[in-house]
Amino acid sequence: MSICITSTGLYTPPYSISNEELVDSFNQYVDKYNKQHEAEINAGEREPLEHSSAEFIEKVSGIKSRYVMEKEGILNPDIMAPVIPYRQLGEEMSIMAEMGLAALQEALDAAGLTGKDLDGIIVACSNFQRTYPAIAIEIQHHIGMEGGFAFDMNVACSAATFGLAQVVGAIKGGLGKKIAMLNIEICTAHLNFRNRDSHFIFGDVATATIIEELDTPKGFEIINSKLYTQFSTNIKNEFGYLDRSEFLAAKTAMYPDINEPVTDKLFLQNGRKVFREVCPKVSEIISTHLAENNIDSSELKRMWLHQANLNMIDLILRTVVGKDADKSIAPTVIDEFANTSSASPVITFHRHNEGLNSGDLAIMCSFGAGYSIGSVLLRKV
Amino acid sequence: MSICITSTGLYTPPYSISNEELVDSFNQYVDKYNKQHEAEINAGEREPLEHSSAEFIEKVSGIKSRYVMEKEGILNPDIMAPVIPYRQLGEEMSIMAEMGLAALQEALDAAGLTGKDLDGIIVACSNFQRTYPAIAIEIQHHIGMEGGFAFDMNVACSAATFGLAQVVGAIKGGLGKKIAMLNIEICTAHLNFRNRDSHFIFGDVATATIIEELDTPKGFEIINSKLYTQFSTNIKNEFGYLDRSEFLAAKTAMYPDINEPVTDKLFLQNGRKVFREVCPKVSEIISTHLAENNIDSSELKRMWLHQANLNMIDLILRTVVGKDADKSIAPTVIDEFANTSSASPVITFHRHNEGLNSGDLAIMCSFGAGYSIGSVLLRKV
Repeated sequence: MSICITSTGLYTPPYSISNEELVDSFNQYVDKYNKQHEAEINAGEREPLEHSSAEFIEKVSGIKSRYVMEKEGILNPDIMAPVIPYRQLGEEMSIMAEMGLAALQEALDAAGLTGKDLDGIIVACSNFQRTYPAIAIEIQHHIGMEGGFAFDMNVACSAATFGLAQVVGAIKGGLGKKIAMLNIEICTAHLNFRNRDSHFIFGDVATATIIEELDTPKGFEIINSKLYTQFSTNIKNEFGYLDRSEFLAAKTAMYPDINEPVTDKLFLQNGRKVFREVCPKVSEIISTHLAENNIDSSELKRMWLHQANLNMIDLILRTVVGKDADKSIAPTVIDEFANTSSASPVITFHRHNEGLNSGDLAIMCSFGAGYSIGSVLLRKV
Repeated sequence: MSICITSTGLYTPPYSISNEELVDSFNQYVDKYNKQHEAEINAGEREPLEHSSAEFIEKVSGIKSRYVMEKEGILNPDIMAPVIPYRQLGEEMSIMAEMGLAALQEALDAAGLTGKDLDGIIVACSNFQRTYPAIAIEIQHHIGMEGGFAFDMNVACSAATFGLAQVVGAIKGGLGKKIAMLNIEICTAHLNFRNRDSHFIFGDVATATIIEELDTPKGFEIINSKLYTQFSTNIKNEFGYLDRSEFLAAKTAMYPDINEPVTDKLFLQNGRKVFREVCPKVSEIISTHLAENNIDSSELKRMWLHQANLNMIDLILRTVVGKDADKSIAPTVIDEFANTSSASPVITFHRHNEGLNSGDLAIMCSFGAGYSIGSVLLRKV
């Protein structure tokens, strides 16, 4: 019996924002902010904000555009967040469920399956729009599963590989034979569009991956996985249910700094430290994973890496495979999608899994907040 | 090789609140509310709130008291929420990590292990105080694990059994041999203490369960698990990261109704529907699970059930085992702890796993929001 990825599906949001559009809005915000705080800035009591540029963004990240679920609010310098109307739970489908469902339907169609064939759904991503009931259970309902289980898990940007590893475990533990793993990300809703260092980083998307236990393998066989985590606060988002209790203790209103360029309640990172600390660790984990499977890095035909930053992808490829490694081994989608957190290695797989021969070895690798790193070893059937 | 629960640990919060104390505060709030809205109430435009009583609470739930992380704020009729000072992430240990660590240390001590022996930690509960980095990874750091993985998952009240099933899968999938599954609940922070139907339901607690793959089994062998979910909005908590986007769309402040007796942003349930729909389904899942393992319900020596409500526990016991079933088969801790969400079946196991003989069969079963139901079949070694 083999456990295989038999198909994937991709939901692409309706709008795209170019770097130029984003920077135009950001620079308007900067001008307003500096004017509003002119007296303090002139008195040296507050740092002025700096303009950004499309060239800067592309140079440091490789990102040219990002898809978003809502565009006007993000680009309005007085709002700078997606404006998403509330949907009555139980009467309308939740937005995360809708996105996931579209990706899942595409993946099921590609695998020649329907919702009735599924035994389980795991939604693995970096944020959830509610505490309960689980988004996965809402999708289970709408896709027409009969029985089975569904649940949500959060491993930030590494959720896809951790999710795949959990699916494999669920199959080996006898919980089912056909399980879908979904990554649904509205990253723009927890992104701080007023923060010059990170406002350009993320995009929205949803992916679905179908994993099946099969007598006759097809697609990509999952050989095994290696998961690694190490505590770091260099990437964080402290939004959570204790906020009310903490604001009561601080005797402030709820979220007094939510519209500031720096707030703990939205995505916040120390990008330089992350780059310096995560890249070598990711390379080490992949290399160790290969060594544990007696695979030489020269045998690696494809690496579907987390798309956080083009320079990170280049560095990891060169460290693992060699400094003259063919860039086509680690394909990228970051220019079009930006960083889509958990979904990014799956989009990359979805777009770039052709051209491999039977028996070819490949790695899907995610990394991000936690820190968390997951490496899944695959063999083309 | 066997996969066994080899120990558990329990962290009990520093304070306890009796029904009498809770009702005294609640009734003060009711009087203030009715006085504040006197004109509207007299004009028939608003329903007055009703007093509660300690007897009512005990009669409908079996709860006599609950442990809490903070007491004064909850009992202050002008606050009615735990007041918990913010701790600087990375400089001080997070409160959820601290609670989980205490339970984990007790469990490790009982198993004769240290943090270095662990390969993974899963924190499975109904709410997380932040989005990332994961609470599990913070605990991994503080318990002194060397390498390994950790992540958070949320399956509301069913998180313990779903967590156990994931641990078994992780072991079978080769991710590790010794894994801890933690349930950390500060339920009082997402409870609406202004809601007469539910203000008494929850308490705070943390539990830890050590699961080991062993040549020579000990403790309780995990035979297998059955997980089931079915979408329902009868138990919900819609707090989440899209709230900002939704309040922007609604053009309101953040959380305008957070201090009302009914708000979607805290725990909210239709208790009667839940009772009517969940009890028969739980009984059916346990009975099916036993039948799939060719076990007659008369062979079941112990059921560690989710402690949501004493009447539910009685009904499930009688439905599964028989109407004259010995109540000691399904021990309870709800009188002392109230409902502690994911942790409750583990507390019940922790307190009441003595008196079984080698080979005796038992079930740990959780159920709750989603709906989600998990049944884990255990054999006393």
